[in-house]
Amino acid sequence: MRTLFNAEMSDLAGDLITMSRHVESAITRASEALLTQNVELAQAVIADDGALDELERTVDERCVLLIAQQQPVGLDLRTIISSLRISASLERMGDLAQHIAEAARRAFPESAVHTGQEEIVAGMAEAAKTAARELVILLEERDLNTAAGIVSDDDALDSLHSQAYKKLLSAEYDGTVQETLDIALLARFFERFGDHAVAVSRQIVYLVTGDHSGSRSVF
Amino acid sequence: MRTLFNAEMSDLAGDLITMSRHVESAITRASEALLTQNVELAQAVIADDGALDELERTVDERCVLLIAQQQPVGLDLRTIISSLRISASLERMGDLAQHIAEAARRAFPESAVHTGQEEIVAGMAEAAKTAARELVILLEERDLNTAAGIVSDDDALDSLHSQAYKKLLSAEYDGTVQETLDIALLARFFERFGDHAVAVSRQIVYLVTGDHSGSRSVF
Repeated sequence: MRTLFNAEMSDLAGDLITMSRHVESAITRASEALLTQNVELAQAVIADDGALDELERTVDERCVLLIAQQQPVGLDLRTIISSLRISASLERMGDLAQHIAEAARRAFPESAVHTGQEEIVAGMAEAAKTAARELVILLEERDLNTAAGIVSDDDALDSLHSQAYKKLLSAEYDGTVQETLDIALLARFFERFGDHAVAVSRQIVYLVTGDHSGSRSVF
Repeated sequence: MRTLFNAEMSDLAGDLITMSRHVESAITRASEALLTQNVELAQAVIADDGALDELERTVDERCVLLIAQQQPVGLDLRTIISSLRISASLERMGDLAQHIAEAARRAFPESAVHTGQEEIVAGMAEAAKTAARELVILLEERDLNTAAGIVSDDDALDSLHSQAYKKLLSAEYDGTVQETLDIALLARFFERFGDHAVAVSRQIVYLVTGDHSGSRSVF
């Protein structure tokens, strides 16, 4: 029975890794679509999001069945509850990547990233991709140093988010309303992506160390 | 043992009702602060959000303990898992009310709602308050007709969100960048508030009817 349980816990961990890889792929391709006006790539990210939603449902069902059939306690139970939270955050990160791809598609053949904002948006894309890559590693290896990296990516995203807004509000700014809306929303999507990456990493840190102090939900 | 379990399940339901009342109060006061430039009220909403976060932690701990100590199955287990999701959505709705209050505070003594947008924002505030009030009733009475009302409030929020953006992009619009950002973000906060209200109501419908088809997470 315990062997079966271990196998199922391992499947659960595997599902979360699969979800995190999906998120990494989605944010990487959405960012490229955004920065290179690649509408086919944007379309592919949007089309693929359903698979991530499906994975979330699989994880959720697996968690409920594991609890019902195995009646876990202690760390096993907390791992399962954390898995539910992690799958919800990963699903939401996929939605945010999809929103970024939608912004790219809406602006096509123009760019949704306007003159003077390219560097900030490229910086946000880079930090978000790094955070997503580190999440995969964190879920695979449970190496707490990776968690620190994710917090620092999120700090970078927060700072770039502020810079983007400051730029919009500077005296020199003369963009159109559409340009203002594009940047405001893109900056927010990337910033929320970082928040969720931190939420996932805190769940994992909590599981590994038992320290719950930082794991306030951002769902 | 069963009596104790029932008492604890009832406490859990009570905590969720308390959270939903907190959310209703937060969105009602945040909306009033926004529409009447009441900075003290905005400040109060911001200060009170910590209590909702604390309630979410209480619910989460209660759920984990209930599962560990009582090893529930079937509907009891699903109720507990749904309670975790509902508390996460309610906490996030509180955050969104807080963001609306922050927008009011940032603009003070000016209004964050600019000429020509008052009607749309007042409409969003009304739909969000109604959705929050209906959520309290739904959690208290489990009356499925209330769930239909919440979906229709969310439709209203989506439609007003679109109208706000359309107005920003119309030829006549001549607001400043700050005005554009204020409306764009406020419209998004209200729209997300509606999404979470629907997510909570779907969790409850699922518990009452067993129909999971609409309960995709929006966390």
